[in-house]
Amino acid sequence: MEKINLDKYKNIKRRIEREFINLNPIQRGGVPPVESKKAIYEYWDGYSVCDYCGGRLDQVKTPSICEFLNDLSKFLDMDISRTTHGARESKFIVMHSLCKEGDYVILDENAHYTSYVAIERAKLNYAKVKNNGYSTYKIDPQNYKETIEKIEDEGGNIGLILLTHVDGNYGNLSDAEKVGKIAKKKGYPFLLNCAYTVGRMPVKGKKLKADFLACSGHKSMASSGPIGVLSMRDEFAEEILKTSKDYPVKEVEFLGCTSRGVPLISLMVSFPYVLERVKKWDEELKKTRYVVEELEKIGFKQIGIRPKEHDLIKFETPILDEIAQRDKRRGYFFYDELKKKGIGGITRGVTKEIKMSVYGLTWEQVNYVVDSIKDIVLNKI
Amino acid sequence: MEKINLDKYKNIKRRIEREFINLNPIQRGGVPPVESKKAIYEYWDGYSVCDYCGGRLDQVKTPSICEFLNDLSKFLDMDISRTTHGARESKFIVMHSLCKEGDYVILDENAHYTSYVAIERAKLNYAKVKNNGYSTYKIDPQNYKETIEKIEDEGGNIGLILLTHVDGNYGNLSDAEKVGKIAKKKGYPFLLNCAYTVGRMPVKGKKLKADFLACSGHKSMASSGPIGVLSMRDEFAEEILKTSKDYPVKEVEFLGCTSRGVPLISLMVSFPYVLERVKKWDEELKKTRYVVEELEKIGFKQIGIRPKEHDLIKFETPILDEIAQRDKRRGYFFYDELKKKGIGGITRGVTKEIKMSVYGLTWEQVNYVVDSIKDIVLNKI
Repeated sequence: MEKINLDKYKNIKRRIEREFINLNPIQRGGVPPVESKKAIYEYWDGYSVCDYCGGRLDQVKTPSICEFLNDLSKFLDMDISRTTHGARESKFIVMHSLCKEGDYVILDENAHYTSYVAIERAKLNYAKVKNNGYSTYKIDPQNYKETIEKIEDEGGNIGLILLTHVDGNYGNLSDAEKVGKIAKKKGYPFLLNCAYTVGRMPVKGKKLKADFLACSGHKSMASSGPIGVLSMRDEFAEEILKTSKDYPVKEVEFLGCTSRGVPLISLMVSFPYVLERVKKWDEELKKTRYVVEELEKIGFKQIGIRPKEHDLIKFETPILDEIAQRDKRRGYFFYDELKKKGIGGITRGVTKEIKMSVYGLTWEQVNYVVDSIKDIVLNKI
Repeated sequence: MEKINLDKYKNIKRRIEREFINLNPIQRGGVPPVESKKAIYEYWDGYSVCDYCGGRLDQVKTPSICEFLNDLSKFLDMDISRTTHGARESKFIVMHSLCKEGDYVILDENAHYTSYVAIERAKLNYAKVKNNGYSTYKIDPQNYKETIEKIEDEGGNIGLILLTHVDGNYGNLSDAEKVGKIAKKKGYPFLLNCAYTVGRMPVKGKKLKADFLACSGHKSMASSGPIGVLSMRDEFAEEILKTSKDYPVKEVEFLGCTSRGVPLISLMVSFPYVLERVKKWDEELKKTRYVVEELEKIGFKQIGIRPKEHDLIKFETPILDEIAQRDKRRGYFFYDELKKKGIGGITRGVTKEIKMSVYGLTWEQVNYVVDSIKDIVLNKI
C-alpha cells in the first residue's frame, strides 16, 4: 500500500459553533438542542436504532420511530411520512416513482440546484416558471398556470409540479396554496420543497394543497444529518411506498431503509424543541426585519421580497465592495474583521452581496451582530 | 393540529453499547472509537463539514475530505472514491449509471436483500448464481461463468456482475478474485459488495479484479452512520461521476453531495483506527474459531464454510430449541438469560439458529461470552 499520512486525522477540530456566532443560513436551522446532544452519546454507532428492528425501520417501536412518523404527519398536516437521507433524496424518490422517463417537471426558477439534479438523475425534462427578476425575484403563481399550459400545448407529458417553498438564494416565501390549487385543478401531483421552512416556521401541507412535502432535518429541523422527511397524502402512498417483489417487507424506493443512527435519533429528540420553536416564528421575523432595517442604514440593500417573510437574508453590499478596494486584505477584510469579533458564517472574500441569517439567536446576539457589522463598516468608510 | 404526546421523546435511552457485550454481527463493526466520539461533539450539527465548502463535498479541504478520499483509494487499492449514504446506495449508483433498463445483473444467491432491491429500483433483471446448499452454502465461482453464458445464450444483455464478498447470513468469504477474472474475461464490469469486509479485514480491490467496491461505514468501518463508500477504477469514473448539464460542478448520481456531518467526520477520524485493526484480522479469526470450537462442544453446529474465514457466525442450535420446549419463557429464555449476564445482540425468541460475532472483543470478553453461553445451556439440560 502507498504510504498514507495519518496525522491529519488526529486533530480534526471545529470551533465555529462553540466559539462563534454563526450567520450561515444553511447552518442556523440545523443546530441540535442539548437534549439531542445527550441522546447522540448513546446512539452514535452505526446501527444504534436497529436494536429491536423486525425488518422495517418505520415500524421500529424502541425507540418509537413508528409513533414518531405518525406524529410527524400530524405536525405537517399530511397522511404518511417516511424519513429519507435529505430533501433532495425525498424529491428524487417522488420523481423516480411517479414520473416516466421524459416526463416534464414544472418548477420555479428559484428552485435549489438539487431539484434540477434530481430531475436529471430521474431522466426527466423540466420547464421553468420564471421569477419577476431584479430585485424581488418573486414567483407569481399565475405563471405556473401559463407554463403548464405551454407544455400541454406542446404535447409534453407533465409528471409533477414542484415549488420551492422558500428558496436558498433570496429567502423568498412562495404562495404555495395558490400553486397547489392550480396543480389540483390541472390534475397534477404537487410537491413542495420545504427544506428551508418545515422546522423553522409553521407549515400545514394539506392547507397548502401539497401532495408531498420534502423536508430537511439537518437544514431546518434542529437535527444532526443527513436526514430528510418525505410526507405524503394517502392516495400516493401505494405508489411511493411500493414494496419489493422478492422482499415484500422492503420499500423499493427507500432501498429498504434510509437514514438511521445519529441523524434519526437527533431528529426525534429534537422534535418537541422544533414544535415549540415554530410557534415563535413571528419573533424570528421581527429579528430578521430588524437586521434589515438597521443594516440598510449603512448602505446594505436587501434583495428579494420585502418585508422579509423568512430568516434568510440576501443583501447587496456595495459599501463592502468599496471598502475592499482600499483594504490590503481586499475582499477578505469583512470576513476577517467579523472573525475578530467572534462572528462567522459569512462567505470568505465575497463583498458584492452576502447571505446571512440570525435565526434562533437571542436578541442580545442579534444586537451584537448588528452593532459589530455597523462598527466594521463605519470605521472603514 | 391533532394532539401529539411528546413524553416519548424526552427519555430516549440506549443501554446496550454501554452496559452489555453486544454480539449482533451488524453492529460489532460499527462502534466508533473514542477519538471519533470526541470529534462528534464538534460536528453534530447538520452541515458541520460544510464550513469551508466551495460547492463540492469531495473537494473540501477543511476538514480534509479531499485527501481522505485519496487515502481511502490507496487503502482499498482502487483509483477513485466517493462517500455515499451506504453500501446499498453505492450499489444503486453503479447500477443506475452503468445499466440500461432491463439489463441483467448476475449475482450470488447469498446476496444481501439490498442488492435485489437496488436492482428492482433500477428497473433491471437479475440471474442468481446458486450456492451449493446446506450446510456450507458456498458460492462456486465457476457457476458465475455458467450463469453468464446461460443469460448470453438466451440473448439477455448483461450490465453488471455482482458478488457479495462476505454475506450476512452465513458469513461466507467468497473467492472474489476468481469471479473477478471471469467477469474480466467476459468483459463485464464487476462490483464487489464489501459491506461486511472493508474495515474489518484487508481488502485490495485491484488484486481482486474489482471494478467497484461498495463499502459500509456503519457496518464495518467503525463509524457512525449512515455512510458508505463507492470506490472505483479510473475507467468508470467518467460515467459514474458524470456532472449535471445545468450545474457542471455537481455529480448527478450523488445528487450533488451525499453523507456529511457526523457520519463523514466519524468515518474520517476512525480511519487510522480501522487501518490498524484490519492488520489484526488473524487474531479476530482466532477468536471466531475458538467460539465455534467451544460452542460446538455443547451442541451448537456452525453453518457455512468451515473453518470460519469471517467473524459472522451462524449456528444451528437444536439444543436451545429443546430447552425452549421446557422453559416457561419458551424461546425467550436464551435472550433473557444472556441479558442477566450482560450479553446482548442475539435475536429475541429465536432458538433454532442464531447469528453472532465477537469481532473486536477482548479475549477476556470472548471467554466470558463462551463461558456464559455454556453455563446457560449446561444448567438447563
